[in-house]
Amino acid sequence: MRISHNHPRFISLETRERLVRGFQSGVVVSQGLIAHGRGEAFDYLLGEVTPESSRVATKAAVALLLSAKNPIISVNGNTAALVPRDIVRLSRLIPAGLEVNLFHRSLAREQRIASFLKRNGASQVLGANSSARIRIPGVASPRRSVDAKGIGDADVVLVPLEDGDRAEALRKTGKIVIAIDLNPMSRTSQAATVTIVDNIIRVIPELVRMTLRMKPLSKSRLNAIASSFDNERNLARVMKDMIRYMQGWT
Amino acid sequence: MRISHNHPRFISLETRERLVRGFQSGVVVSQGLIAHGRGEAFDYLLGEVTPESSRVATKAAVALLLSAKNPIISVNGNTAALVPRDIVRLSRLIPAGLEVNLFHRSLAREQRIASFLKRNGASQVLGANSSARIRIPGVASPRRSVDAKGIGDADVVLVPLEDGDRAEALRKTGKIVIAIDLNPMSRTSQAATVTIVDNIIRVIPELVRMTLRMKPLSKSRLNAIASSFDNERNLARVMKDMIRYMQGWT
Repeated sequence: MRISHNHPRFISLETRERLVRGFQSGVVVSQGLIAHGRGEAFDYLLGEVTPESSRVATKAAVALLLSAKNPIISVNGNTAALVPRDIVRLSRLIPAGLEVNLFHRSLAREQRIASFLKRNGASQVLGANSSARIRIPGVASPRRSVDAKGIGDADVVLVPLEDGDRAEALRKTGKIVIAIDLNPMSRTSQAATVTIVDNIIRVIPELVRMTLRMKPLSKSRLNAIASSFDNERNLARVMKDMIRYMQGWT
Repeated sequence: MRISHNHPRFISLETRERLVRGFQSGVVVSQGLIAHGRGEAFDYLLGEVTPESSRVATKAAVALLLSAKNPIISVNGNTAALVPRDIVRLSRLIPAGLEVNLFHRSLAREQRIASFLKRNGASQVLGANSSARIRIPGVASPRRSVDAKGIGDADVVLVPLEDGDRAEALRKTGKIVIAIDLNPMSRTSQAATVTIVDNIIRVIPELVRMTLRMKPLSKSRLNAIASSFDNERNLARVMKDMIRYMQGWT
């Protein structure tokens, strides 16, 4: 077993500071800090770098987002705190709507997050008012409530840092779900149409770059990319990467 | 790949609530919430149960604590919030001193934690005043400052939820370090004399039970148990358990 290990720590430290600032400003809740820590541990098992499997999933995700009739990006507190500019940039590029959707919901926090996104360039943010709400069947948490003009009407939903319940329920309503989740064994990862197992801090900028590159592609080319993607096989690949990382220690 | 998975969630949920209460009362800091999340992810890879390797490490730890001339238990905010009664009970049983030692240090928080431990049965808590401080060489964080009558004078130190810097530095001063850390690859886990890779919520009660059982043993029997323990081999075992857990998913 190795005694010393030059594991990269800089990404997680910078990210952590961003999150703690989000917590101080009321965008992030205490449960969000714990959830972030869980992500950090799985990122550790990736060596804090994007695995090849994640690039393949990102490509499939962009193909689905660009082919969608009504794509929506669901934003929670951690996502807003960690990648505010890039998530707005992605929504403009696709283009896709932005909807605030919280597990620990309060109107004040929804509005705080919507304002924060607007200060980072968003022109419209859904989900930050009490009107035009519908419920997704099968979700027990406050996340069941979605904007009728946003997730309610969407065919493709990008859900970074999602809870398992809702990802499963969104799938059951027939929507295409793209998840960003560092735990490949989570219910969200298992339920999504496409799961990008990687740190959101690397994923969103990569989605922006990939969208710029794939925008000129034809519908049929995009369809081919999306339909050749196999989420189950891809999750098995990333699991093998993590296992290989751990085996390097024994 | 399995689609549904009946992973036990109850331990982590209850533990999480205890931690958030500690945060609300100022015992735990925001960085402690993130650190807890990292632990949760590794606990997930243990299936949230104590592996056999952890029992072996616990036995070696108790042998060292019972043989020590001056054993000390270092307590940070998360430890106090998660297992206040059991850590006090353990200190009485061995007997070992209790010293508050924080990474994010402030006299107010030290005193808050000391009071909290006293409300949970502790008669004396070291480290919660500015006098009689000495520095451990080689530690950059505020944790370098320790109580001269506590960790400063100890031969065996139990350090649950430690930072890697300090565990290494304590080892270099010639002290025997017993770590409790869910990440078997962390610098703390690698540097300690004995590493118990398990959730502190299960470890401390198990240390209490094991101490009750091993107290009647002779010095030579305790020495035999301690010296037959190989931390490197034991960490490799727990890594294999985690790898096996992940392989069950591919």
